[in-house]
Amino acid sequence: MPDKETIYFTRGVPAEESFPVEAMAQAAQHAVAQYGPVILQYGKSAGFAPLVDWLADWQGVGPEQVLTANGSLQIIEFMCYHFLQPGDTVFVEAPTYDRTITLLRRHRANIVDIPLEPDGLNLEALEAALKKQVPKFFYIIPDFQNPSGATYSLEKRQRLAELAVQYGFWILEDAPYRPLRFRGQEQPSLYDLCPERVLHMLSFSKLIGPGPRVGFVVGQAEIIAKLGLIASDTYITPALLGQGVVYEFLRQGLLPAQIEKLKALYAPRLEAILTALDTHLPDAKTTRPDGGFFLAVFLPQTVTTQAVRERAAQHGLILADGEGFYAHGGGEHFLRLPYCALTPAQLDDGVARLAAAVNELSE
Amino acid sequence: MPDKETIYFTRGVPAEESFPVEAMAQAAQHAVAQYGPVILQYGKSAGFAPLVDWLADWQGVGPEQVLTANGSLQIIEFMCYHFLQPGDTVFVEAPTYDRTITLLRRHRANIVDIPLEPDGLNLEALEAALKKQVPKFFYIIPDFQNPSGATYSLEKRQRLAELAVQYGFWILEDAPYRPLRFRGQEQPSLYDLCPERVLHMLSFSKLIGPGPRVGFVVGQAEIIAKLGLIASDTYITPALLGQGVVYEFLRQGLLPAQIEKLKALYAPRLEAILTALDTHLPDAKTTRPDGGFFLAVFLPQTVTTQAVRERAAQHGLILADGEGFYAHGGGEHFLRLPYCALTPAQLDDGVARLAAAVNELSE
Repeated sequence: MPDKETIYFTRGVPAEESFPVEAMAQAAQHAVAQYGPVILQYGKSAGFAPLVDWLADWQGVGPEQVLTANGSLQIIEFMCYHFLQPGDTVFVEAPTYDRTITLLRRHRANIVDIPLEPDGLNLEALEAALKKQVPKFFYIIPDFQNPSGATYSLEKRQRLAELAVQYGFWILEDAPYRPLRFRGQEQPSLYDLCPERVLHMLSFSKLIGPGPRVGFVVGQAEIIAKLGLIASDTYITPALLGQGVVYEFLRQGLLPAQIEKLKALYAPRLEAILTALDTHLPDAKTTRPDGGFFLAVFLPQTVTTQAVRERAAQHGLILADGEGFYAHGGGEHFLRLPYCALTPAQLDDGVARLAAAVNELSE
Repeated sequence: MPDKETIYFTRGVPAEESFPVEAMAQAAQHAVAQYGPVILQYGKSAGFAPLVDWLADWQGVGPEQVLTANGSLQIIEFMCYHFLQPGDTVFVEAPTYDRTITLLRRHRANIVDIPLEPDGLNLEALEAALKKQVPKFFYIIPDFQNPSGATYSLEKRQRLAELAVQYGFWILEDAPYRPLRFRGQEQPSLYDLCPERVLHMLSFSKLIGPGPRVGFVVGQAEIIAKLGLIASDTYITPALLGQGVVYEFLRQGLLPAQIEKLKALYAPRLEAILTALDTHLPDAKTTRPDGGFFLAVFLPQTVTTQAVRERAAQHGLILADGEGFYAHGGGEHFLRLPYCALTPAQLDDGVARLAAAVNELSE
C-alpha cells in the first residue's frame, strides 16, 4: 500500500488542530510570572488553590469537595487504594474503558461486567448482579461512553441512582466527554441525581489538551480529603505548573469559546463518519452518539474483530482491539471507532476500507 | 508568643527566592508556542522526547535508559509494582525518607532497616542482614541524605556495589541533592560504580522547583521499558506541559548558573546553622554535611524527640517528627533540621529556641 496513507482508528486522542496553542502560550507566561512562587513550589495535594476554587464554582460545590490530579485516570487508582482490598468487587460497564480494567486488575479487584446498551445499562442484568453481590463501587461513563458512544437515558440514570442508595454502593462517574454534546438534550449527571453516592470525574484532556494532565473529581468533602491523602502519599503535589497554566486560561474566560470551537470541529466529523457508515456499511449495527469521541460498530456474528483487524491492516487501516474493552470476553465482534482526530475525508476513506475488509470476510 | 515569628524546621522545601521565575516564565511561553501540539497532547510514557534526549546526554546514557515521571517519588511506586509482591523484602537506610516508608508499606513490603552512619551504611549490619535475606531492592540516598545529611564514603560505596553484585539485589539510588555540593569532593555515584545493578533517580524539584513535577530514573533499557509500561498504565503520559517548560530552560543552557545560584544561596545557610549549633548546642551530636538540604541532631539519651517537639512549640519552633524517618523505631532521639528555606537569622534564632527546649528538658 505504498501510495495510500495509513488511517488509524485506534486511540481516542484530541485533534492536534483543536489545541489553543497561542492562548495557552500566553497563559503559560502569565501563570509563571504571576503565580511562580506557588506553582514552582510544593503545594497541597488538592491542587493549585485558585484552580480548585474555580472548579468548585464551576461545579457548584465547595472547594473542599474538589481534588485535582495528574489526569483523571490516576483518580481511579486512588479510588482503588481507598475502597479495595484484593478480591473486592467492582462493577463496570461491558464494554468499558480498557485502562480502567488494567487498574482494577492491578488492584486484584473482582470485576463484574454489566452489559451496556445504547441507552445505558441493561437494568435487569444490573439488578440480578446486585442480588448476588454489592460492589465497592461501580465505574460508569454515562455520557458518550468510551468505547461505545452510548449515553444513558434519564430513566436509566434515575434507576441507577435509586439502586446505589438502596444497595449502598459508590458510583464513580467518569465524564470527560460530557461537555462535548453536539446536539440533543443533556441529561442530569449521576452526581446531580445522587450526590451522596457519586464521585464525579472531569478532565481538561478533551477540552484543552491532555499534556497539562489536569483532571479532577467532585464529591463529598470527607471522601475527597481521604483521596487527597492517598494522592499526597503518591506524588506529594500534583503538577502545579500545568495547573497554573490551565487556571490562567480558565480565569481569562476562554473555556466556553474553546468548547464551541471543539464542537464546530468535531460535529462535522461525527456526521461524516455516520454518513460513511450509511454509505459503505449500510447493514452494520452501530451506535449513533450525539457527541463525544467514539462510536461502536457491532460486526455480524460471522465476522470477528480479530479477522477484521488483520484484513483492515492490509488496506492500510489500523483498528483498536475491541476485545480489550471487555474484562471477561464479549468483544469478539466489537469495534471502537474514534472520529475526532481524523478529517471527514479520512473518515470516509477509513470506513470504506473497513467495509472492504468486512465484505471480503463475509463473502 | 504573639510578637515572635514561628520558625518551621519541618519540610524539606526549596527556598521561595531560589526559583528562576522570570526565566521560567519566558521558557513557558516559548515551550507552548514551539512545542504546543506535542506538549498539549498525549505522548509516550517516557516523557517529552527532547527532554529525554537532553537528560540522556547529561547522564551519558542512551535515551532508552531514561524514564521521566511526575516527580521521582512516584518512580519508587513504579519500582514497587515492578519488583514486589506482598511480603517481599526491601532494605532501607535507618533513618530514611519517610515518604518511601509510606509507599513500601502501601505495597506491603517487608522493610528491613540498615543503620546509617555519617559516612554511610553500617557495613557489618548490612552484611549480617544479607546473610539472612536478600532484598528485592535497597533504597538508598547516598549524597546529603534525607533526613540525616549523611554522605557515603568512597569505600562504603564500593563495598555496597560489590555486595549488590555478589548477592544479586537492585539498588534504587535516590540522588536529588547530589548536584548541591557546596564544598568537598564528589564521590562516584552507585550507578557509576555498578550500572548493571542500580537505578539512579534524579529530580528537578531541588534544582529548578518541584511544581513542574519532573523527576527521572536512569538504568538498563530493559527495566526502564518495564517501568514505562507501569507508568503508562498509571497516568498514560506524564505532565508534558511542565516537561516542555523544563526542557526549554535546560535547552537555553540555564541550569549551570541556576545551580551556582542555589549553592550561593544555600551554602551560607549551612554555615549559619552549623555556627548556631556550635554556639547554642555545643555538646550536641550532629552531622556536618557538605551540601544538600538537611542535617541531623541526635539528642542526648535523656531527652526525647517528642518532648523536645512539644517544648519547642512553646518557643514558637515547629519540628518534624524524627520518629517518622525510622520504619521500626530508633528515632526517639532523632531530629531532622532542614536549613535551605530559612534565612541565616532564622536559623540562628531557631537553633537558639531548640537549645532552650533541650536545656529546659535536661535540667
